[in-house]
Parts: sequence; structure tokens; C-alpha cells
Amino acid sequence: MKYAIGIDVGGTTVKYGLFQENGKCVDRHAHPTAADAGYERLIDELAEEIPALYKKHQLNPNQIIGVGIGLPGPVINDSTISVGVNISLEKELNMGKVLTKRINLPVIVANDANVAALGEQWQGAGSKHNSLVLFTLGTGVGGGVVIDGKIISGTNGSGGELGHMPILEEPSQRTCGCGSKSCLELMCSATGIKAQVRELLEASDEPSTLRNYNGHYDARAVFSAARNGDKLSMEIVETTSYYLGKACAVIAAVVDPELFVIGGGVSNAGDLLLEPTRAHYQNMVFSPMKDTPIIKAQLGNNAGIYGAAKLALDRNKAKKKQS
Amino acid sequence: MKYAIGIDVGGTTVKYGLFQENGKCVDRHAHPTAADAGYERLIDELAEEIPALYKKHQLNPNQIIGVGIGLPGPVINDSTISVGVNISLEKELNMGKVLTKRINLPVIVANDANVAALGEQWQGAGSKHNSLVLFTLGTGVGGGVVIDGKIISGTNGSGGELGHMPILEEPSQRTCGCGSKSCLELMCSATGIKAQVRELLEASDEPSTLRNYNGHYDARAVFSAARNGDKLSMEIVETTSYYLGKACAVIAAVVDPELFVIGGGVSNAGDLLLEPTRAHYQNMVFSPMKDTPIIKAQLGNNAGIYGAAKLALDRNKAKKKQS
Repeated sequence: MKYAIGIDVGGTTVKYGLFQENGKCVDRHAHPTAADAGYERLIDELAEEIPALYKKHQLNPNQIIGVGIGLPGPVINDSTISVGVNISLEKELNMGKVLTKRINLPVIVANDANVAALGEQWQGAGSKHNSLVLFTLGTGVGGGVVIDGKIISGTNGSGGELGHMPILEEPSQRTCGCGSKSCLELMCSATGIKAQVRELLEASDEPSTLRNYNGHYDARAVFSAARNGDKLSMEIVETTSYYLGKACAVIAAVVDPELFVIGGGVSNAGDLLLEPTRAHYQNMVFSPMKDTPIIKAQLGNNAGIYGAAKLALDRNKAKKKQS
Repeated sequence: MKYAIGIDVGGTTVKYGLFQENGKCVDRHAHPTAADAGYERLIDELAEEIPALYKKHQLNPNQIIGVGIGLPGPVINDSTISVGVNISLEKELNMGKVLTKRINLPVIVANDANVAALGEQWQGAGSKHNSLVLFTLGTGVGGGVVIDGKIISGTNGSGGELGHMPILEEPSQRTCGCGSKSCLELMCSATGIKAQVRELLEASDEPSTLRNYNGHYDARAVFSAARNGDKLSMEIVETTSYYLGKACAVIAAVVDPELFVIGGGVSNAGDLLLEPTRAHYQNMVFSPMKDTPIIKAQLGNNAGIYGAAKLALDRNKAKKKQS
């Protein structure tokens, strides 16, 4: 039996998964990320943990087909990162090459949200489909575009950077981390939803249960209040779903995917968010694509390790074909 | 020597090209389209013209690798059309299958603008690149997305339907052919530019040389007037380039292509349109993609036959690999 290792490097934890070639996850665990210590420390840790993982299962290195890794930030040529997002990075780093040298196994690297999209397409919400577009609505908005079972990673590693679609119809009062005032992320991330609350509370004296939180509301509180009929919260759900639906409609006219998958913490709102998103989508999209489903992600925080392992398996298959 | 035939079916002419396997176009000609006569008549014509073309060059059918055809409207599974755009269609038609039976050669079908994008990537503006996004700014706005040398045709045949991106920041007074009031096409097509003139002329008494045309202005007249400093025309160039730049910035966050290529009659405005488009793009796009070039298409009306021939050549190559 052959195996692949899938790793998802997040701002708070590094998740590890050991997968059989047939896709079954046989082990997974997580370690806290030493984010401030930067990539050098991360590589040391990976070089220790990867062999530890397969040795734990009495496996030899030649039973490991390869290692896939999802990293925050743009990844170029399945290997190189140039911007340190969450984890500090001094200069451009060919992560794939450096780590391959250390662990003597093939390593393939991709953007974390791209990898999550591949995971959902492989064994999650899109397991019956060849193409999908994933939004991860978390602290920020990430995304991934999978067509014919392959990630579109982009020339600059920025394929599926859906949070940075300049899609707002009026510039926001706030500025996105990227410097823009029109990013989808300004409305549809957990941070964006919180900021919408603050703006609306400040703009009027309209009563809202969110005022009871003394500023300590989060996206979950907004959805909960909306469920209980809080008008201000319902307005925020409406705005958020409008832009999410619009983003889907715009993307549909570009790649016409089989389905849209919504993940990340904000997606826990479920149909409260997804129903109006679907309605706005159908209202805006070019008619041949009206029936494209918009559904909730299924793999949660594990999407990344699944997608990373799939990446390693696919790379191995492609190499076999070539030779 | 082996050959492929590329055909581009337009509303006014059907263009034919005979290509050597190495990509050299050895013959091309065009016939008027009997658009009203519908697809039945078109198939009769193709079944006659295709053998005539290779016989003219003393070729045998076994020297023809295949036939690629670009058709207006969405094409599903490289073969089937369900909507008659410009050419009347009674019911869904498996064009590839029907024509293959008639001419006894492999036939592959795709959307006309998708095929033009592939043509530009093969031997036009994108010949040094593996990926590009093409806009065709004509009567309407079409488009094509080519990634790793392959068209993204989409689940419903609507990949690259860039004219129907719902991107306007305020609904237009006009309605797009598709029923929407937010389509890019409402601003950036030749028709959209003419309509912008009419709206601006009616909205004020502002002097403009376009008033001398008594309504018989076209996109070319607008660009010519803008070049001569006509303020109203300059305003239209500004709006058009703003939305074109915005569309590029949005698409960049989805597929991050190597370059954008602008074709169609409106693109003859050249840098008068492209310079402000680039400025708006750079102003809106996520920073890793700031340097993605936006350039003019090179193959003009021939992009379609080139791309269609390439499609036939690629299909043949893929089949060989499989066997």
C-alpha cells in the first residue's frame, strides 16, 4: 500500500494527514503554529514531523508517494512563496525544493484555500463533480477554482483570490489589507461582517440586540440575531448575501463551474446566508447558469489536508504518465 | 503532411481555413451565412464545402486530422448547441455528431469567442503564453478563457461569457439581450457605446461634435471625436475603459491569467481605449497581478479559424495519447 501526506499550514495550527492512495485518511493531528518564528522554524518542524508521522505507522519512506502542503499566500509554480501571510517570511522561498532536500520526498506546495477547494472536490461537497469554485469565509475571504479536477493556481499564484475581487458597488469606508476599498472581503469575511455591524450601529439609533454586546459581537451573533428577527442584523445578512451572490454570478460568466461551495466559519450560518445568496445569484447570473448549485462545504477544517494529499497523489500520477 | 480544417461560423459569413499540422494556414476563404435558413442549411453547406476545400488541394480525407468549428452561443461537451444565436435553431442539436456522420471526419465544436481566444493564444497576441483571457468587443461582448493552452468551456457552455458579467455599479436604463441591466456588454460593446452616446446627448445640451451625426454615429466616430478632444466622447471612453479595467481586475482574482487580450471592432481604438483600461485595472486589481499586460488582439477576424483548427489538432493529440 502506498500513502500520501497532506499538510495544511494555518496561522494557528499546522494540520497533518496521512492518506492511503485510495483516499482514505488513516491519521490526522495538529500542532500549534509558531507563526512569529517564521518559515525557517516551520521547515524545521515539518522536517521533523513528516518522518515522525510515517514512522508512527511503521511505513518506509518509499511507501510515501509524496507530500502536499497548503500555505497561506500566493504560491508560484507549485513551489515558491514570496509573501509571508500570517507566518513571517524574509525573502522569496522555494519551499518545495528546500523541504524536498530535507525530507527526501517529493513535495508540492499550493495556496491553502486552493488546496481546500481541491479537497472539497475530491471527498467533500464536490465529490460528484469535476469542477467547483470554493469560497472560504473566515477572518478574510479565500477561494479556490478547480476545473477538470485541477486547481487554477494562476500566473502569480493568485488564482482563486476571490476575497480580492473588486466588486463593491460603492467604495467602503474601510480599507482591505490589500489596500483596496472595493474587495469582496470587506463585506463577506467574519471581519467584514463585524465591521458592517459597527458601521450600522454608529450610523443610526435604530434599536438592535447587537447593542447589548458592547462591541463584543461576532459574525455568529449577527446570524443569531437575524434569526430572531433583529432588523439591523437582517440587513447585514442581506448585504453579505447580495455580494456573495454577485461574486458567484460574475465568476460563473468566467469559468461556469458545476457548483459553488461556501466554507469557512461564516458558512456555519447555513441556509440563513445561502438561501438569499442563491436568490441574488439567480437574479444576476447569465441564464444558462441559473441552476448552478450554491452549497455548504463539507470537510470543514480538514479540507486542506485532503486537498494537499490529493495534490501529492495527482503530481505522482502526472509524473508516471510522463515517464 | 497532415492537415486540419478550422471553421468560424459568424452571423454574416462562414470562414474556412486549411492548416498544416505545424500551424501554417495554407488556404482560407469565406462564404455568406444563410442565417435565416438555420442550422439545417448550414450543415448542408458545411458538408459540401469541407470536402471541396481539401479536394481543391489534392488532399485525401485520411490526410485531414479533423475539423474544428466555432459557433455563436453556448456549446456543451465540445459538440452540442441548444440556443440559436444569429442562426435559427429549432431544437438542441449535436452538431459534432451530425456533421461527423455527414463528412466522415472527426468534428469538434466550441463557442466562437472561446475559439478565437485559443487562436490568439496559439498564433496571435498570446503566442508566447500558456494562458490568456480574450474579450471580443463587437456588436456584443464575447470572451474566452484559455488556461494551460485549453479553453475553459464551462459546465453549461458558458465559460468566458464575459459580456454577461453583472458588473455595472448602477443598473443601466437599457436591458441586455439576456434580460439583465448590469452586463458589461451594456457599456463595452459597440452597441453599448452607441447607446452611451444617445443617453449623454439626451441628458444635456452639452456641445459635442457627435450631435452633427444626426444619430448616425458609431463606436469609431466616438473614438475619433475623443481623439479630437470632444468632451462627451472622452467621457464615454472613460466609462468604457473603467468597466473593461474592472472586468479584467475581477477576472484576475479568479484565474490570474498571463495576459488579457482585447479584440473585436471596438479594440481598433487601440491605446486610446487600452491606456485608460490599464490604468483602471492597476488601480483595482489585487497587487500580485498589477503587471499583467492588457494588449490588443492580433489575428482580427481570422482568430476563429486559427482557434478552431487548433482545437481539432489538440483533440487528435489527446486521442493519440489515450490510445
